Amino acid sequence: MPNLPAQFITLDGIDGAGKSTNLAFIRQWFERHGLPVLFTREPGGTPVGEALRGLLLDPDTQVGLRTETLLMFAARQQHLDDVILPALKKGIHVVSDRFSDATFAYQGGGRGVPLDDIAALEQWVQQGFHPDLTLLLDVPLEVSMSRIEQSREKDRFEQEQAAFFTRVRATYLQRAQAAPQRYALIDSHRDLAAVKADIEAALDRHFGL
Amino acid sequence: MPNLPAQFITLDGIDGAGKSTNLAFIRQWFERHGLPVLFTREPGGTPVGEALRGLLLDPDTQVGLRTETLLMFAARQQHLDDVILPALKKGIHVVSDRFSDATFAYQGGGRGVPLDDIAALEQWVQQGFHPDLTLLLDVPLEVSMSRIEQSREKDRFEQEQAAFFTRVRATYLQRAQAAPQRYALIDSHRDLAAVKADIEAALDRHFGL
Repeated sequence: MPNLPAQFITLDGIDGAGKSTNLAFIRQWFERHGLPVLFTREPGGTPVGEALRGLLLDPDTQVGLRTETLLMFAARQQHLDDVILPALKKGIHVVSDRFSDATFAYQGGGRGVPLDDIAALEQWVQQGFHPDLTLLLDVPLEVSMSRIEQSREKDRFEQEQAAFFTRVRATYLQRAQAAPQRYALIDSHRDLAAVKADIEAALDRHFGL
Repeated sequence: MPNLPAQFITLDGIDGAGKSTNLAFIRQWFERHGLPVLFTREPGGTPVGEALRGLLLDPDTQVGLRTETLLMFAARQQHLDDVILPALKKGIHVVSDRFSDATFAYQGGGRGVPLDDIAALEQWVQQGFHPDLTLLLDVPLEVSMSRIEQSREKDRFEQEQAAFFTRVRATYLQRAQAAPQRYALIDSHRDLAAVKADIEAALDRHFGL
């Protein structure tokens, strides 16, 4: 395989799109190829980030929308500085369960923070750094909603309405359309074998395998 | 007195400049004039802000400098939205123990975040809103250092060197010089009666009394 520098790969998409299952497929792909990889997640990924994650996901917390957006990027700054960039510098690939796309989709498209305001914070924190590849899982709204219903207790972000999730999904899709070279759009509303094959094909293609 | 809209007044300055003592003088001034006033502080001022204050002031916390700066503004956003602006809209004056000047002085001048980067976050959060009056307490470095030594256990921000405090103080003074109509510079390295008289004169002048 070509001697690529370590890659930063993110997995993103609307709640209920099957991120946990697909993370397992990604993990298996890296194991099979014997590539060094670090798995991490947002919000979280550092002690400060996990403390903020607890604050943000608590249904009882009174966090305003713009405050929440700043906290997401504060956690991301620490995550980049302490986890993501040091691993990449050591030649270790990094896979993050969610990254900035989620802030654009949820706080922006979903809840109404102007996308330009989010882009300003993204630039403040990332200073031009972006994922090399984003695996974007997509399912129709009724699928994601019913998966959330069945599976677990809803956290604060999930206690929202269908109109909200429609806007979130649309924002993800718009971002993928605007930068198709960076996104692999995965239709995860199919049987698992087909989804797994798509994930593997996207990784094979990205790594030139 | 002229029928001014409610005023937003901040008290700021290097650690050890005597903020607590001077806050009492400000409180007495408002009481004597029978003006409705809310006292608050940063970082903190809201449940989210107090949680972040705990995180930021803990000597054991591993918070990076840019993360810390984002957290300061996240707390400030909530403080503005939930406390400061609602009070001002009701005609209640607000006095805050520290505000954005402290971020410019400590994270900027003191620790090296570019002042333009701080100004970008200030604009993101405040959108042009600024204190009507900032009472800036100033003392020579050796005074503030010895007051801190004597008085209490040092928190993380106070466990710094003299060079750091020199830069912090210089940044405060530069900001006051750049906008003299907004700042009242109080030399708090004098006997308390003189300092109190200066605070009262600054408030009298600001309120046209």
